[in-house]
Amino acid sequence: MSFLDNINSPSDLKKVKRENLPKVAEEIREKIIDVVSETGGHLAPSLGATDLAVALHYVFDSPKDKIIWDVGHQAYAHKILTGRKDKFHTLRSHNGISGFPRRCESEHDAFGVGHSSTSISAALGFAVARDLKNEEFKVAAVIGDGSMTGGLAFEGLQNAGHLKKDMLVILNDNEMFISQKVGAIAGYFAKLLTIGTVKRVEEKIMRVVSRFHNFGSPFGRLIKRAKVMLFPGMLFEEMGFTYIGPVQGHDINNLVTILSNIKNMSGPVLLHVITKKGKGYIPAEENPTKFHGVGKFNKDTGESVKFSGLTYTQAFSDALIKFAKTDDKIIAITAAMPEGTGLDKFAKLYPDRYFDVGIAEGHAVTFAAGMAAAGFKPVCAVYSTFAQRAFDNIIHDVALQNLPVIFALDRAGLVGEDGGTHHGVFDLSFLKHIPNLVIMSPSDENELQNMLRTALNSNKPCAIRYPRGAGIGVKLDKTASVLQIGKAKIMSEGSDIALLAVGNHVETCLKAAEILKKSHVDAAVVNMRFLKPLDEEMIKEIALKIKNIITVEENALSGGFGESVKSFLCNTDARVVNIGLPDKFIEHGNIKILKKKYGLTAENIAETALQTLQNGNAKNEKQKTA
Amino acid sequence: MSFLDNINSPSDLKKVKRENLPKVAEEIREKIIDVVSETGGHLAPSLGATDLAVALHYVFDSPKDKIIWDVGHQAYAHKILTGRKDKFHTLRSHNGISGFPRRCESEHDAFGVGHSSTSISAALGFAVARDLKNEEFKVAAVIGDGSMTGGLAFEGLQNAGHLKKDMLVILNDNEMFISQKVGAIAGYFAKLLTIGTVKRVEEKIMRVVSRFHNFGSPFGRLIKRAKVMLFPGMLFEEMGFTYIGPVQGHDINNLVTILSNIKNMSGPVLLHVITKKGKGYIPAEENPTKFHGVGKFNKDTGESVKFSGLTYTQAFSDALIKFAKTDDKIIAITAAMPEGTGLDKFAKLYPDRYFDVGIAEGHAVTFAAGMAAAGFKPVCAVYSTFAQRAFDNIIHDVALQNLPVIFALDRAGLVGEDGGTHHGVFDLSFLKHIPNLVIMSPSDENELQNMLRTALNSNKPCAIRYPRGAGIGVKLDKTASVLQIGKAKIMSEGSDIALLAVGNHVETCLKAAEILKKSHVDAAVVNMRFLKPLDEEMIKEIALKIKNIITVEENALSGGFGESVKSFLCNTDARVVNIGLPDKFIEHGNIKILKKKYGLTAENIAETALQTLQNGNAKNEKQKTA
Repeated sequence: MSFLDNINSPSDLKKVKRENLPKVAEEIREKIIDVVSETGGHLAPSLGATDLAVALHYVFDSPKDKIIWDVGHQAYAHKILTGRKDKFHTLRSHNGISGFPRRCESEHDAFGVGHSSTSISAALGFAVARDLKNEEFKVAAVIGDGSMTGGLAFEGLQNAGHLKKDMLVILNDNEMFISQKVGAIAGYFAKLLTIGTVKRVEEKIMRVVSRFHNFGSPFGRLIKRAKVMLFPGMLFEEMGFTYIGPVQGHDINNLVTILSNIKNMSGPVLLHVITKKGKGYIPAEENPTKFHGVGKFNKDTGESVKFSGLTYTQAFSDALIKFAKTDDKIIAITAAMPEGTGLDKFAKLYPDRYFDVGIAEGHAVTFAAGMAAAGFKPVCAVYSTFAQRAFDNIIHDVALQNLPVIFALDRAGLVGEDGGTHHGVFDLSFLKHIPNLVIMSPSDENELQNMLRTALNSNKPCAIRYPRGAGIGVKLDKTASVLQIGKAKIMSEGSDIALLAVGNHVETCLKAAEILKKSHVDAAVVNMRFLKPLDEEMIKEIALKIKNIITVEENALSGGFGESVKSFLCNTDARVVNIGLPDKFIEHGNIKILKKKYGLTAENIAETALQTLQNGNAKNEKQKTA
Repeated sequence: MSFLDNINSPSDLKKVKRENLPKVAEEIREKIIDVVSETGGHLAPSLGATDLAVALHYVFDSPKDKIIWDVGHQAYAHKILTGRKDKFHTLRSHNGISGFPRRCESEHDAFGVGHSSTSISAALGFAVARDLKNEEFKVAAVIGDGSMTGGLAFEGLQNAGHLKKDMLVILNDNEMFISQKVGAIAGYFAKLLTIGTVKRVEEKIMRVVSRFHNFGSPFGRLIKRAKVMLFPGMLFEEMGFTYIGPVQGHDINNLVTILSNIKNMSGPVLLHVITKKGKGYIPAEENPTKFHGVGKFNKDTGESVKFSGLTYTQAFSDALIKFAKTDDKIIAITAAMPEGTGLDKFAKLYPDRYFDVGIAEGHAVTFAAGMAAAGFKPVCAVYSTFAQRAFDNIIHDVALQNLPVIFALDRAGLVGEDGGTHHGVFDLSFLKHIPNLVIMSPSDENELQNMLRTALNSNKPCAIRYPRGAGIGVKLDKTASVLQIGKAKIMSEGSDIALLAVGNHVETCLKAAEILKKSHVDAAVVNMRFLKPLDEEMIKEIALKIKNIITVEENALSGGFGESVKSFLCNTDARVVNIGLPDKFIEHGNIKILKKKYGLTAENIAETALQTLQNGNAKNEKQKTA
């Protein structure tokens, strides 16, 4: 019998003898590897934080004590330890448990997460609330070194340091940012850790001191002894935190001792813990980036179950590289997502024109605006959902100044298993109203390169939104074309009903048109291409000929493309029906399941079209008889 | 003849003898006080930065060198020195010069600003661009201590420290944040400045050192001498900057020397300059908060030209205080705007439940979400335009978790003289599509208290948007009512045309209805109250009876309320016309002028209504004859 068999809650864990905790961690890791090799998920972060999760739940008393996991992709062990062991195999599947902590899933998930750098702010909220209510519980935020680069984390630290509430921030430092040398903070963390520190700190002190001249040699001698002791964590100390660390994050026994000791310290405390991403699974230890978020893989070999076909991400990446060859004004910017956005290839070829700014989407956009103002053509590649974090920068720094920054919005539409925090289903709604901005969505991977070409050619701020996953497998033109901005394209003529489609749903609508043929319905299909400016001329023309119009988009209906069309055709006799996502946060699950559920398959669309025609006929009948 | 008479560009300034620069500054200050006492504007920040602006333009070579003013409200001297002296009297007026630097206004305005904390990111963009193009120019960002509390500034510092480009960041520290004790960074700055430093730094070092035990007394002795020398600016040094300062910011001669010396330093340099907000005008020096942004005032006495009537801000402030008396779960949060949002009164009465988090809107919202998760009812009071900076936090931390955080969105709609960066005309569009959120807009100050009551009662995330300036002067009910969520209110019945109005335009529409009576048109007026959920039932009922419908909102038409109504009524025979703001960034100018220009006065609305009826009749005629 395993230890884990008897653990269904943190209180069960507390019954385990301390010396057996590493075995518990080992069993948890096994379970995580077993399940994630089948379901996919954030393997490496969760393996790296397993020992920390065991130690935290051994020392703290959740749900009374609040543990907040930044981003939440490292919280699988937490889920297993807090009553979700038996459901863990349903991880990330539709109706199964979420890949992220969610308040509605467990009372042990104190705060829902998904995007980075929120945990300190939220933890401070709990700490302030506790003191106002005169309650007694502990609050701990666990935040990675990557998340610590986000401005929100800094804002949280700053306010926490000022308010001086009792709270613990655990910096889970897996040195990922260090190896990638992103940002000054990474360098700072590295300095806290490495032997090289000694020399660098010494140099820095001497540099500072050399500006003054009233020191004799005793100071110099002392520096040599004082340097390491003085400097670890001084940045956090300056922010009002008591800094403790760095400590080894895989020695559970030691972690339990330290956490027990600092649990009752007063004021804000920062515990700096060093962990290894992917810990306990060799392929993930060796390639933590690949195993950060991973699809189904072979547990024994670590090999991913391949899926074939060029993805939109790859098509974007290839096109950008192609264009950059002949245009040295093209700049590529990512906020800590070189692989996810496909910019890693660009980085290798054009390192001088590539910038990874860390998890700092706001800065990425304003920095791009600065470069555009200086004559460059910066391309910010960012997931649709993370673009939300740079919303004001897009408006205030780019669009208001009409600067030619290009937003390559990857993962637009449903993203599947990552769920509600990650679906990119709001971008059309939050971009549509921004003046000066051109918004496009390609119907296939070849059109993506044409749109990127068009954007680079336009000298305007442009957003190109494209979905997660494989394109439709079209052949790529050798030379990309420049599209006419604001012009839609009729893909197939038809007379009974018109399907106006956004992006990848052009293909779905073409399939729907095929299905409709069987019912002797002749459907026109239009590739809208531009969501802004909208091709109102074409919509008008179509509406004059075809009275029944269906719009299809993988975006919230509220504020989306369909609403624009309805609004535009309001005072005509056209009947418009919108297909898109309802006014709720969409759950996690396989994209195919979600598309079917929300009416976005070719079959769904054909059915809606038939229904619309029937209703329209019924209405006409009614009007005639009235 | 004054010095200023001969200065129409930075090169003219360079002809002035160095010893006469203080006189130039004095003349500029006089001009600023003269003009701003008539036009209103950001007096105190611009007076505080006048000496710095003179020194900068004396040493640097704009427009070749790029000077980027964070927020830009301290840049009046910069404007006067860069060819806008003769237009300066048109400051902030319609068709006059802007209150903020704008690229389209002058080649000396390297980067447009208005919202805070963008300058370091933008400056870094220029520095990177310069090096890629092998050009030679200097880049300097001037950023206040307040702006430095924003996460974006931290992201910029971090990336700049990492990239090590030659650039200068001038921290214009007017100690405002220090006096208000907001945030740990403020405390940090204070420590760099005050005599008290010595003791505190010593204590901190001893606290750190006491964790180790291998130090003898020589260390302790040395500490006493080393402390001040070691610590100034260490935080910035940790971020990769060379820190220089603090230096006095009103000694122009000294500033010129220092700037000349550091101008050619390599790598990122942070110059810490201490200035006095309001410098040179006694009333502003004595009350810098009042004179931060000020309306017309009497130059001799400093007394503001009063305008009478309760503002929406005051109504909100009074209502929140009233409710907080009997509900100890109410929390008030501001991002560095206690006076502007009216929360200063709350702060005095309920200091324990009041939080000023600094210029950190993102943190304000996520912090509020944490408190809401712990059972409180946080009210985030923030200007509509600044809520854009917390967009993802509203979605991801509040709405997705359905937490009862209330957003009191002040300055929604046109704000007038502050212009394009500050108009609150996007909030309906960027909030409408967020699931779970309730959005309201009061038609008068009494309804504002009812809506706040309703929100506090709802246990849902709610946004209440209300305009800048005076309410309509209604009597306030002693006890606020709870409104039915999602129900509109018919203000006056009518049969020819229906005016559906949002917020303060209910009053405008009632006036328009009066005007229409003279043309024998019987207009119904509806106070929508809730933008989300929309009262679709009522809209449907109205559309069945009245075929001509006008919507009126002070928001972008794109993605706004009117679009929702058109979209909802698309497949009916109603004719809907939307009144609201066009798809462009609205310029600065007096609100009355702007409202008239954009069709938002009662006269405009009446005219649009008549036009709509005429068009409708023409259309009907046409249909009949066809």
